[in-house]
Amino acid sequence: MVAFPHTKTAAQEKSSHRDYFNIAISVDCVIFSYQDRDLKVLLIKSDLEEFSGLNSLLGDLVRPDEDLNAASCRVLKERTDLDEVFLQQVHTFGRVDRHPSGRVVTTAYYALININDHQLKLGSHKLHWHSVKSIKKLAFDHLEILNYCLSHLRNQLDKYPVVHHLLSEKFSLRELQEVYEAVLGTDLDRRNFRKKITLLDWLSDINEMETDVSHRPGKLYKFKSKFLKKR
Amino acid sequence: MVAFPHTKTAAQEKSSHRDYFNIAISVDCVIFSYQDRDLKVLLIKSDLEEFSGLNSLLGDLVRPDEDLNAASCRVLKERTDLDEVFLQQVHTFGRVDRHPSGRVVTTAYYALININDHQLKLGSHKLHWHSVKSIKKLAFDHLEILNYCLSHLRNQLDKYPVVHHLLSEKFSLRELQEVYEAVLGTDLDRRNFRKKITLLDWLSDINEMETDVSHRPGKLYKFKSKFLKKR
Repeated sequence: MVAFPHTKTAAQEKSSHRDYFNIAISVDCVIFSYQDRDLKVLLIKSDLEEFSGLNSLLGDLVRPDEDLNAASCRVLKERTDLDEVFLQQVHTFGRVDRHPSGRVVTTAYYALININDHQLKLGSHKLHWHSVKSIKKLAFDHLEILNYCLSHLRNQLDKYPVVHHLLSEKFSLRELQEVYEAVLGTDLDRRNFRKKITLLDWLSDINEMETDVSHRPGKLYKFKSKFLKKR
Repeated sequence: MVAFPHTKTAAQEKSSHRDYFNIAISVDCVIFSYQDRDLKVLLIKSDLEEFSGLNSLLGDLVRPDEDLNAASCRVLKERTDLDEVFLQQVHTFGRVDRHPSGRVVTTAYYALININDHQLKLGSHKLHWHSVKSIKKLAFDHLEILNYCLSHLRNQLDKYPVVHHLLSEKFSLRELQEVYEAVLGTDLDRRNFRKKITLLDWLSDINEMETDVSHRPGKLYKFKSKFLKKR
């Protein structure tokens, strides 16, 4: 147990804790998308020599006059030109030695993007989509951050209809199951999946059928409109 | 859109961003407990003159050589002498002007404590339990942090059996409903509540009945053991 002092002013607190005010904050965005039955994440070549050749998540230091959440929106906008997408804070990583430039605590955000709706201009920034399951190494502690956000996304799947951010507006149950399988990294039993989805009561049958498919056309669904807010 | 530079060393990055490394990180712990059909939170009189007379959450600056999560455990241990309790990171608050000492970004954690299991030595630290619903004002942005963690706890209620941290080992469905009502701040319909709890399949009937109660004795339950890990 420690003893606690009497009152002090904010200025006194700061002057007695000078060496505590040497930290920088960054944001890192784990931007997921779904394509070709595969979960992808947006990566960039690290610009630090210490991590030469390695990819990293999209992030940046938070500016001295910038709110934390605003920084995550700025990073997303600067790097992808997107702003109207699902972006949510997930977790803050604060190991003492996680950054070679000094003490940098980073707050991770995750975004879900429908790759078909958004034409990203990736070329000029050396950005690229990477299959999540093939990633073995990243700069900094970014593999830990990616895995944390992936676990978080997986946990959300049966509690919130978040996958609608990854899908087209209309989809068949087969397509929905394929997204779930890509995110979970595992095959699902068709009957159990349909039973679960029915119980969740998230979907509207829109009385349309798939067209131009090689298999037997399935019914098309939408997420009920109450679930379709952006953030 | 901005242009991105070529590679640089970590030292170069730091020297070109000196004014970014002026931030302190703190942790704030929202420690909930349940007593007398009421949700409580542990508060302390603020020791900053700027917030004279106001209560604040239990928090502290993260030390230069201390990991972020370790700091939350330290604060809990120092202030309550508890360590084996449920403690989880919830959200990081990073508004530019949230602290009068300078830029301090804070990570909020929430803890759930069974008040009957833990004899807290609160006297020496001016700590006190406060009824959550009666709190109108706190120092800093701590009311916002408290409300965020309360929403988070409410969101967890029907997804995870977190309330077991607030309850005794054995309890009746009436007692369980009373905890839910205290956390949600609203009365619940008895039949609907029992139906929902049955569907969740979290409880074991232990073949015992309440004793020494003024109403008709109810059956006693436990949470299934797979839910009883501490963290």
